[in-house]
Amino acid sequence: MQEIDIIITGGKALLLDPQNTIIDQSALAINGGEIIAIGKMGELSKQFKAKKTIDARNSLIMPGFINCHTHAAMTCFRGMADDLELMDWLNNYIFPAEAKNVNHELAYWGTLLACAEMIKSGTTTFCDMYIFEDETARAAKEAGMRCLVGEVLFDFPSPNFKSPAEGLAYTRMLLEKWQNDPLVNILVEPHALYTCSPALLEAARKLASDYNVPLGIHLLENKSEKEQLIQKLGKGAVSFLKEINYLSEKLIAFHCVCLDENDRSLFAEYGCKVSHSPASNMKLASGIAPVPDMLKAGITVGLGTDGCASNNTLDMFKEMSLTAKLHKAARLDPTVMDAKTVVRMATIDGARTLGMGKITGSLETGKRADIILIGLNKPHLTPLYNEYSHLVYAGGGADVDTVIINGKIVMENRRLLTMDENDILQKVREIAVRIKKSFSV
Amino acid sequence: MQEIDIIITGGKALLLDPQNTIIDQSALAINGGEIIAIGKMGELSKQFKAKKTIDARNSLIMPGFINCHTHAAMTCFRGMADDLELMDWLNNYIFPAEAKNVNHELAYWGTLLACAEMIKSGTTTFCDMYIFEDETARAAKEAGMRCLVGEVLFDFPSPNFKSPAEGLAYTRMLLEKWQNDPLVNILVEPHALYTCSPALLEAARKLASDYNVPLGIHLLENKSEKEQLIQKLGKGAVSFLKEINYLSEKLIAFHCVCLDENDRSLFAEYGCKVSHSPASNMKLASGIAPVPDMLKAGITVGLGTDGCASNNTLDMFKEMSLTAKLHKAARLDPTVMDAKTVVRMATIDGARTLGMGKITGSLETGKRADIILIGLNKPHLTPLYNEYSHLVYAGGGADVDTVIINGKIVMENRRLLTMDENDILQKVREIAVRIKKSFSV
Repeated sequence: MQEIDIIITGGKALLLDPQNTIIDQSALAINGGEIIAIGKMGELSKQFKAKKTIDARNSLIMPGFINCHTHAAMTCFRGMADDLELMDWLNNYIFPAEAKNVNHELAYWGTLLACAEMIKSGTTTFCDMYIFEDETARAAKEAGMRCLVGEVLFDFPSPNFKSPAEGLAYTRMLLEKWQNDPLVNILVEPHALYTCSPALLEAARKLASDYNVPLGIHLLENKSEKEQLIQKLGKGAVSFLKEINYLSEKLIAFHCVCLDENDRSLFAEYGCKVSHSPASNMKLASGIAPVPDMLKAGITVGLGTDGCASNNTLDMFKEMSLTAKLHKAARLDPTVMDAKTVVRMATIDGARTLGMGKITGSLETGKRADIILIGLNKPHLTPLYNEYSHLVYAGGGADVDTVIINGKIVMENRRLLTMDENDILQKVREIAVRIKKSFSV
Repeated sequence: MQEIDIIITGGKALLLDPQNTIIDQSALAINGGEIIAIGKMGELSKQFKAKKTIDARNSLIMPGFINCHTHAAMTCFRGMADDLELMDWLNNYIFPAEAKNVNHELAYWGTLLACAEMIKSGTTTFCDMYIFEDETARAAKEAGMRCLVGEVLFDFPSPNFKSPAEGLAYTRMLLEKWQNDPLVNILVEPHALYTCSPALLEAARKLASDYNVPLGIHLLENKSEKEQLIQKLGKGAVSFLKEINYLSEKLIAFHCVCLDENDRSLFAEYGCKVSHSPASNMKLASGIAPVPDMLKAGITVGLGTDGCASNNTLDMFKEMSLTAKLHKAARLDPTVMDAKTVVRMATIDGARTLGMGKITGSLETGKRADIILIGLNKPHLTPLYNEYSHLVYAGGGADVDTVIINGKIVMENRRLLTMDENDILQKVREIAVRIKKSFSV
């Protein structure tokens, strides 16, 4: 009998492997942070002696969710300003609030709060773009979350840098510092085509290429951005990206609400990835991304919550529900975006979007153990005919009981094990008092 | 000092009264099922000596949600068939499943499950249309929920009646039997204009009028229904309703996806009510109801989840989130359907929709005590700038801790006090096994 760290027994396992295998009365063996065996409980429990056994009867076991786009520390601005015109919202609320309040402390505590919320709703990996991302990385590592983070780069000063050159230098520092971390990964993130000069875009591309990491960028979030870019660039945004050598398997484009047929062909040809954020796109009235057409073209699409100023949660269940429903409503076709497709987008396709498809996003032997348990013994999840349907149309973040990341239990029976939840809530409440004051002066 | 049943102290109370009053550090006094005083904790606690004190620090206190349209017992079919063409879904799944399986037992246990789910997500009143509604009423009463229920009436036989005349007689029996119940109310519910003959519609109208109760009907759920009705009736559905004297303050029209400008004028003129079901409309790709225009016309609009075959939950938080987001996306206008408007739709406007605006839907002295407590001490509800925003954009059913209906505590700290939750889950699982079998033969 082999000694191992953890065995999870008795649950119904949704592997999200290429065959979408489902195993009833399953067992999963975890050792050294890795999934080393998956099978029927009866067979596997004889082979292993585990230090820790997790009883998963009446539970679904599945890969943790992959949140492909957020601004974690913006939890501090959650619900500060809603239901406003985009430019009013940005210019009169978000930008001034950020300019006055974002600092190391906010980045750190805001990210810890985000990690608490993400773990409590079943997310095990997130991709982040914000300011002071070294704090984001530090907080995520403390929380025990897998992440891909990058400092937002643009032509104007940020609370963290006075010039694009400083922003690039900071990003290079991140790339060096976190190079061999088991959880923290760094990407290069020019904010958008309308906020970055060609020189900055080129320097960002070169930096990403030097370190062989992804490039992340907001792209075509709404019609007005699309029109503005045609004015500015004299061509479509995606044609321009092609010209400046941005189109590759390592490009992660956030939003892509206005990705037209030619753009989709180019994205498919080059293997570019898309992160879809229906909650944010709906709440900000940005438009409806042509996701069914992207999938038809063969583009890999993951889901991202966007930040808490525009969502206002990091719960991937909500994102799945909206993804399944929004496109049905928009196309008057109830067959598009079926539940299974959407669950794959929130897990394995999200992992592929972030370039992590080999290590996470599904339950397969050899992958890192990023696993969640969802308790089924609840009125709103009864009866059970179809697991994917429950995840997309009935479930919610609060249904997640236990979360394992990289083989470590970070939440057990809804208790966070890596963080002091009350301490985080208290600290962010204090930061919020300061934010409120900055608006009343 | 006056002796009373319950006092709720220390919470932040959202009254949803005409002024949308919010009271910090509040106290609510409840006696004989009625709210007898609302004010600041310091003042009120001196006046009353309560048998039961509920400590509501770190909680929101608000009126329970009003679910204006559901088919409660259809919880038994939750997730049985999704992502299908409407006619495929109805003809090959829902109708055969109902014909083979709906009986007294399913109606009773399915409703108990629905009540468990509704209470656990903060709903205190629901309006129901289904088969064997005497069982629905019995289950709701046991659960301690306020309800307005009616037997579905149509021209063809149902599992409960062989002819429309039998359906009407059954409805009359319900009206007599439940006439003086404190929780159960009966309405008359012809299914829709495309399933009811003029004679049945007239008999239903007369019955509702005789007992002075509302009439509920599915109306203009999608474009194909609208076109079909013009063919059948030789005029628009709402003009036809006017002709047959259906337009009144006591008409509750479910869905109203295709309510055009003339229809809206007529609805406003006659005081007809609308129940909006965005989750179902999106999932079935029925279309997008012109709710912002209805509100502009002065129509009272409540929210309804629809049944669990087409939603698949009864969580009004999800309905609020979709209501706020869907119309922003559809109109490319982030200012429509702001959070406060949506919370009013889910509470006081819902109560008005059901003709219960005088007794529930807001926290006001003299109203029945239908009250929920929402725990705020959670990552996804931190920080707190705006209560309405949290309810609509961040919260979920699982955030509801305690529920009081008609002055009785039916859930405390998420434990149901009126029902044996495990017993209900077990019974519905057994029914689901039978449903599954009925499909494999």
